[in-house]
Amino acid sequence: IGNDTETKLITDKGVGLVEVKGMIIDSRETVRQLRYFLKKDAVKAVVLRVDSPGGVVAPSQEISDEVRKFAAKKKIIVSMGSLAASGGYYISAPATLIYANPGTITASIGVILKLSNIEELMDKIGIKSSTLKTGKFKDAGSPLRQMTSEDRAMLESVISSTHEQFVKAVASGRKLPLEEVRKIADGRVLSGEQAQALKLVDRLGTLQDAIEEAGRQAGIKGEPEVIQPPKKKINYLDLLVEGT
Amino acid sequence: IGNDTETKLITDKGVGLVEVKGMIIDSRETVRQLRYFLKKDAVKAVVLRVDSPGGVVAPSQEISDEVRKFAAKKKIIVSMGSLAASGGYYISAPATLIYANPGTITASIGVILKLSNIEELMDKIGIKSSTLKTGKFKDAGSPLRQMTSEDRAMLESVISSTHEQFVKAVASGRKLPLEEVRKIADGRVLSGEQAQALKLVDRLGTLQDAIEEAGRQAGIKGEPEVIQPPKKKINYLDLLVEGT
Amino acid sequence: IGNDTETKLITDKGVGLVEVKGMIIDSRETVRQLRYFLKKDAVKAVVLRVDSPGGVVAPSQEISDEVRKFAAKKKIIVSMGSLAASGGYYISAPATLIYANPGTITASIGVILKLSNIEELMDKIGIKSSTLKTGKFKDAGSPLRQMTSEDRAMLESVISSTHEQFVKAVASGRKLPLEEVRKIADGRVLSGEQAQALKLVDRLGTLQDAIEEAGRQAGIKGEPEVIQPPKKKINYLDLLVEGT
Amino acid sequence: IGNDTETKLITDKGVGLVEVKGMIIDSRETVRQLRYFLKKDAVKAVVLRVDSPGGVVAPSQEISDEVRKFAAKKKIIVSMGSLAASGGYYISAPATLIYANPGTITASIGVILKLSNIEELMDKIGIKSSTLKTGKFKDAGSPLRQMTSEDRAMLESVISSTHEQFVKAVASGRKLPLEEVRKIADGRVLSGEQAQALKLVDRLGTLQDAIEEAGRQAGIKGEPEVIQPPKKKINYLDLLVEGT
Amino acid sequence: IGNDTETKLITDKGVGLVEVKGMIIDSRETVRQLRYFLKKDAVKAVVLRVDSPGGVVAPSQEISDEVRKFAAKKKIIVSMGSLAASGGYYISAPATLIYANPGTITASIGVILKLSNIEELMDKIGIKSSTLKTGKFKDAGSPLRQMTSEDRAMLESVISSTHEQFVKAVASGRKLPLEEVRKIADGRVLSGEQAQALKLVDRLGTLQDAIEEAGRQAGIKGEPEVIQPPKKKINYLDLLVEGT
Amino acid sequence: IGNDTETKLITDKGVGLVEVKGMIIDSRETVRQLRYFLKKDAVKAVVLRVDSPGGVVAPSQEISDEVRKFAAKKKIIVSMGSLAASGGYYISAPATLIYANPGTITASIGVILKLSNIEELMDKIGIKSSTLKTGKFKDAGSPLRQMTSEDRAMLESVISSTHEQFVKAVASGRKLPLEEVRKIADGRVLSGEQAQALKLVDRLGTLQDAIEEAGRQAGIKGEPEVIQPPKKKINYLDLLVEGT
Amino acid sequence: IGNDTETKLITDKGVGLVEVKGMIIDSRETVRQLRYFLKKDAVKAVVLRVDSPGGVVAPSQEISDEVRKFAAKKKIIVSMGSLAASGGYYISAPATLIYANPGTITASIGVILKLSNIEELMDKIGIKSSTLKTGKFKDAGSPLRQMTSEDRAMLESVISSTHEQFVKAVASGRKLPLEEVRKIADGRVLSGEQAQALKLVDRLGTLQDAIEEAGRQAGIKGEPEVIQPPKKKINYLDLLVEGT
Amino acid sequence: IGNDTETKLITDKGVGLVEVKGMIIDSRETVRQLRYFLKKDAVKAVVLRVDSPGGVVAPSQEISDEVRKFAAKKKIIVSMGSLAASGGYYISAPATLIYANPGTITASIGVILKLSNIEELMDKIGIKSSTLKTGKFKDAGSPLRQMTSEDRAMLESVISSTHEQFVKAVASGRKLPLEEVRKIADGRVLSGEQAQALKLVDRLGTLQDAIEEAGRQAGIKGEPEVIQPPKKKINYLDLLVEGT
Repeated sequence: IGNDTETKLITDKGVGLVEVKGMIIDSRETVRQLRYFLKKDAVKAVVLRVDSPGGVVAPSQEISDEVRKFAAKKKIIVSMGSLAASGGYYISAPATLIYANPGTITASIGVILKLSNIEELMDKIGIKSSTLKTGKFKDAGSPLRQMTSEDRAMLESVISSTHEQFVKAVASGRKLPLEEVRKIADGRVLSGEQAQALKLVDRLGTLQDAIEEAGRQAGIKGEPEVIQPPKKKINYLDLLVEGT
Repeated sequence: IGNDTETKLITDKGVGLVEVKGMIIDSRETVRQLRYFLKKDAVKAVVLRVDSPGGVVAPSQEISDEVRKFAAKKKIIVSMGSLAASGGYYISAPATLIYANPGTITASIGVILKLSNIEELMDKIGIKSSTLKTGKFKDAGSPLRQMTSEDRAMLESVISSTHEQFVKAVASGRKLPLEEVRKIADGRVLSGEQAQALKLVDRLGTLQDAIEEAGRQAGIKGEPEVIQPPKKKINYLDLLVEGT
Repeated sequence: IGNDTETKLITDKGVGLVEVKGMIIDSRETVRQLRYFLKKDAVKAVVLRVDSPGGVVAPSQEISDEVRKFAAKKKIIVSMGSLAASGGYYISAPATLIYANPGTITASIGVILKLSNIEELMDKIGIKSSTLKTGKFKDAGSPLRQMTSEDRAMLESVISSTHEQFVKAVASGRKLPLEEVRKIADGRVLSGEQAQALKLVDRLGTLQDAIEEAGRQAGIKGEPEVIQPPKKKINYLDLLVEGT
Repeated sequence: IGNDTETKLITDKGVGLVEVKGMIIDSRETVRQLRYFLKKDAVKAVVLRVDSPGGVVAPSQEISDEVRKFAAKKKIIVSMGSLAASGGYYISAPATLIYANPGTITASIGVILKLSNIEELMDKIGIKSSTLKTGKFKDAGSPLRQMTSEDRAMLESVISSTHEQFVKAVASGRKLPLEEVRKIADGRVLSGEQAQALKLVDRLGTLQDAIEEAGRQAGIKGEPEVIQPPKKKINYLDLLVEGT
Repeated sequence: IGNDTETKLITDKGVGLVEVKGMIIDSRETVRQLRYFLKKDAVKAVVLRVDSPGGVVAPSQEISDEVRKFAAKKKIIVSMGSLAASGGYYISAPATLIYANPGTITASIGVILKLSNIEELMDKIGIKSSTLKTGKFKDAGSPLRQMTSEDRAMLESVISSTHEQFVKAVASGRKLPLEEVRKIADGRVLSGEQAQALKLVDRLGTLQDAIEEAGRQAGIKGEPEVIQPPKKKINYLDLLVEGT
Repeated sequence: IGNDTETKLITDKGVGLVEVKGMIIDSRETVRQLRYFLKKDAVKAVVLRVDSPGGVVAPSQEISDEVRKFAAKKKIIVSMGSLAASGGYYISAPATLIYANPGTITASIGVILKLSNIEELMDKIGIKSSTLKTGKFKDAGSPLRQMTSEDRAMLESVISSTHEQFVKAVASGRKLPLEEVRKIADGRVLSGEQAQALKLVDRLGTLQDAIEEAGRQAGIKGEPEVIQPPKKKINYLDLLVEGT
Repeated sequence: IGNDTETKLITDKGVGLVEVKGMIIDSRETVRQLRYFLKKDAVKAVVLRVDSPGGVVAPSQEISDEVRKFAAKKKIIVSMGSLAASGGYYISAPATLIYANPGTITASIGVILKLSNIEELMDKIGIKSSTLKTGKFKDAGSPLRQMTSEDRAMLESVISSTHEQFVKAVASGRKLPLEEVRKIADGRVLSGEQAQALKLVDRLGTLQDAIEEAGRQAGIKGEPEVIQPPKKKINYLDLLVEGT
Repeated sequence: IGNDTETKLITDKGVGLVEVKGMIIDSRETVRQLRYFLKKDAVKAVVLRVDSPGGVVAPSQEISDEVRKFAAKKKIIVSMGSLAASGGYYISAPATLIYANPGTITASIGVILKLSNIEELMDKIGIKSSTLKTGKFKDAGSPLRQMTSEDRAMLESVISSTHEQFVKAVASGRKLPLEEVRKIADGRVLSGEQAQALKLVDRLGTLQDAIEEAGRQAGIKGEPEVIQPPKKKINYLDLLVEGT
């Protein structure tokens, strides 16, 4: 099964479909799928279906960056499902066009760090913890002691550095003035309808509407065929070739 | 197994059957089944069996929208089972005709958001939580702190935007004046019999009655054959074709 | 394996057997079995074995309705096992003839809705819930708040509408005056012997007795053969035919 | 493998063996086994091994009735194991002859209905239940409220109707005056030895003794062969024949 | 595989071995094994290995009775393992000869009935139980109410009837005066060494010693071969032959 | 695969290895292995590896007795692993020679019986137990009542009878005066080194040292081959031959 | 499948990819993969993807040391994912070049030892522990007793010896003055952006950016192919060759 | 697959690798692997990788003794991983050369015995235990009673006998004066760096460094091949050969 065979299987009437579902923990699979379509000449447009409450910062940035690079070369249309909030919005922002359902929950632009202090619980259970460490911050944020104001300042500088990265990515992706984004970057959630009014979303519509728009942008006549990227291949050589 | 073979297998004496059971969490499978029948020329009418207490807003809207588009081209008869409430009613509203059992539980038009505050519980357990965030709303609705009136206003604007979308979809689907729908859009549940009196349902009858009506509307003589959409195919190429 | 072959396998000495066991949650399988025998010309009579405490209203109505239609064309003899109460009696009422064991528990004609309020429990655990909603009834019956008198009135109108449907179905199935049924439609349970005295049951006897009576009604000489409906076929085409 | 072959396999030197073990919940399998031997001409006598504390009323009645019909045509010898109490005695009473071990626990003639009230528990947990119903008895016996004297009278009439059925079955099966049975039908348990003294059991002896007696009654010379009924056949046609 | 073949496989140099391990709940398997050896002419002696704390009365009696019948025709040597108490001793008593290890725990001649009353527990949990019954003894021994003196008298008459059966079986099996047995039939346990002094055991020795003695009693020269009874055969016809 | 073949497989350069690991609950497998080597002429010496904290008395006695008989005919060298205490020492005592590691835990000569009384616990839970019995000792040692002084005397006579058996077996196995053994038969544990000083162990060394010594005693030149007994064969005839 | 074959499969257009995910507990697999690429002449550069919060000291040192040796011979580019903190930074420091996402969490240079004292808990449960030991430090750090100041001094000398090793490895890997590293070696965490400002990271960018840079450093034109090391081979000989 | 074939597979360019991971509970597998390499002429040096917190005394002694015997004939280089403490150090001490990572945790020379007393817990639960025993020490160390001073003296003499064995093994293995070892044999842990300063370790380096050193000591030019011992063979004869 070589490249020639596969190219024949993909007609030029298709649009690609990449899905991001649930927490964003790892960027690898999504990036692989986007790059797969980027290299297929027959595919002119891709729909990115987002159904995610967000997740970890760095993989959201890696996907967002890949969407940005993709949009520079081909069309990429986001279709928001039930949820496209926080990191789910981060990865959508640089797309060519964003569709949301009127009842989609989106936005929630901001960064959050949740910490717990369990000293009182440990005290109730009857466990006393003691920590030997070689630097005052080594256990900052630990559930076993109270945060000092120094700890808090150190951690806040980390999240506000990240927040500013988020705001800039939205402003640049949506082509909005930085100040306009910053005003609504207070963590608020919005319905799809409200988000459209604030220019965070382009149009209201379903996944099907997004697929048809992608077809139009790819110059396809009639209903486009939906192509999903192949699963990651199993490398049979792994079992045969010997390591050290 | 090509299209030709399959077309032969579906005679023009059949009506399609699509089922929605349990919580509505994802619209993909139902939309796929509706579109499958939409494209089969031999199928002139479909029965949509609904047995659901509702679920998430956006997928309900995506299915409802697909039912609306379907009804514009072919006949679609809803048959309500034990429950077709809230989102279960949302997806039924745009159908050509609605059957309910006299004892079906239906309606429940409205939107609800349930939140919990567990501060007191955490206090009892002996865990203190602290949150570092970059926007006042980033933890709105969090179980770890009390809602402010600002939080409440922000969240209520999201659900009333969604409620208005629901009311409009019912009014337009059932061809009722907006005000008439709004009057009963207070979350009340109704038996099938009561719902018929309020024009939310067209006829009382079982699934079998709905199938026979669909047969009549499709111009089929005698008892119609019931056709279920094929399961999603397994793409064997996935295992052979190599990604990046 | 076509229809011809199968017809030959079913001799005209047989009576069909359909079983309803446990809670009645879904009507589909039972309706399928009854319709299977309705279409087999060689089968003149069916025994419906009921061993159920009842269940959900709508599927009980769907099965009851199918039994009614069946009895209009062929003989259907109910045999009650340990329990045929509430919904279990609902589906039995329209049959041609009802057998019960003297010790069967039956009747329990009525409708019930059990609700719980867990506010005090949540208070003990230390969880406070708050609800944002767009209609006063949207959380009627919720375990998180007390029922208002408006809530109660709304829900009672739903169950008494259903109760009246039950009473009518029994009166019509058993050919008893409505008032006579209404008098004992107070939820009371009865032994098979007591139920016979009140005309809710025709004869006392075992499943075997019911099978033999069905044989007699079908005009079969000697002991009838018992035929069970085939299991639902596996559609092998599902795995081969491609969807959208 | 037709009937001819099988008939040859069963010589006329055999006695059948049917076993009832544990709670009596369902009568179907035992009735099937008894009817199997009833139709085999080569089998003249059957041993019914009972090792059961009783169970549900109706299936006990169905088995008891089948034993009664069997005893009218062939010999059926009961062998009691560890326990043959309540329903376990009910099914034994109509047999041709009853063997018990001296240490068997038997009798316990009577009917019992155990109910619980969990209001206080719910109160402790902090759950308040409320019930909407359409008849005063619909929740009689419910663990969520106290029994009224009306409830109690209604339920007692059900169990005493059943008790009278039990007493009559014993008197008729054992050919004892009704009053003699009623005197010991107070739920008391008896050892096999005591039960023999009260004529509830004919002889003391093991399963082996019962098998040998069955052999003698069947006119078999030497030690009889023990035949167990075939397992229920698997209907391979079920997987091939198509339903509606 | 007929009888001829098998007979050849069993040489006349073997002694049979039957094992009873753990609680005695069912007599069927042990009786089957003893009868197997009883019918094999080539087997002249059997070792019964007992490692059991006792169990239920009736199956102990059924095994004991079979051992008694066996000893009347062939030699049966008991070898006691860690435990051969209560029912474990009951089944050993009628053997030809009893071996115990010096440290075996044995005797415990007596009958016991353990009952619990959980009223106080139910009260703590907050559950109130109520019982409807048709005879004063129907719930005698129930954990839900206190025993009356009538209950106690009724139950004690059951166990003392059984105790007397046990004592007689030991006296007759061990050929000891009834009074001598009754003196130590107070439930006491004994080491193998002590039991020998009281004539409840014949010799001290291991399983190997018992096997060699059985060999000698069977007239075998040199070390006897140990034969275990075949497992219960799987009746392949069960899957092919059709029931009702 | 007959005896001839197997005999050829075992050269006369081998020493047998039998392992006893964990609690001693059953003697059968160990006795089988020892007897296997006893009959193989090519095997002149066996190593018995013991890694056990002891266990039940009777199987320890059965293994110990087999070791004694073995030592009378061939060489048997014990190698103690981490633990060879109580029953683990009992089975080692009659060997030809005992090796221990200097850090092995051994001795613990004595007998112990651990009993619990849970009356107070039952009282807390709210369960009252009552016992009907036919002899005062039938529930001696029961966790449900206090031990009487009579109970205690009866049980102590059982364990001291067993203790004396243990002491004699050690004295005779180790060829030590009874009084010398009795002095240290107070349950004390010893390291391998300490045990050697008290003559309970012959030499300090590893399993490997024991294997080499066994080789020397068997007259083998060079390193002996280690032979493990075959697993118990699966009797395929069991599945084919028919029982009663 | 020999070496020749494999060499042909790896073209000289590829860069290697080694991944470290989760806690660093064992160095073996990562070292194996790095050495695999070190020996492949066709591979000129490797990307080390790090997504780890750190872990145990010694394996971090073993991987770090291998990265150092690798960088001396070929190019190795680190790409940090969500987390590359503590041990995750330790293994990154000696690389040729370090990429981080702007939102990566990194640094946390320092050593920590978390201990618990559960004496109070044991006291509550009612367990008293006692320890027999042959040296005062044998239970230092035990949860069963308080740490003495001697214990603390002993343990602190162990972690500060390790901390100094960490600081030196960073200074030498990053070519920074020791004092500059020591200043920020207080356990603080940094965003990727902040870490770049402090010279702990060279560039901001995604995994894709790192792969492309590795391609450039390897002198590859166009997009490099990504090569993953083969899985560890299964040694089939293991099952055939005999041990002692 | 005979010895000849295998010998050819092992070239004389290889060094053996034996791993000890986790708690040391059993010495058998490690001893087997060391002896395997001892007999292979082609293998001149072995690396023993230790990653263990120690474990039971006797198996540590058995492995340590085997390492000592190995070092007398061939080179054996220890490589310490994360942990090589207590028993993990015991088995390392007699090696030819010891490598540790600078951050390895090692030493902890000493013996410890942890005991619990649960009398108070039993008292809380409401269980009273009583013990019948035949020697005052039979339950020494039992969690059910307090230790007497006699008990303590007895147990301490056992562990100090073992401690002295440990100290001597270290002194002799490391060629250090006994007094020097005894000074640090107080249970203290050391980093690899600290242990080198105290002569308990020879060099700092990774597993890779140890493998290369082993290669040099075996006189191998270039990088040595790493050979792992074959898994234990499965003895297929076990399934065929018959036992008693």
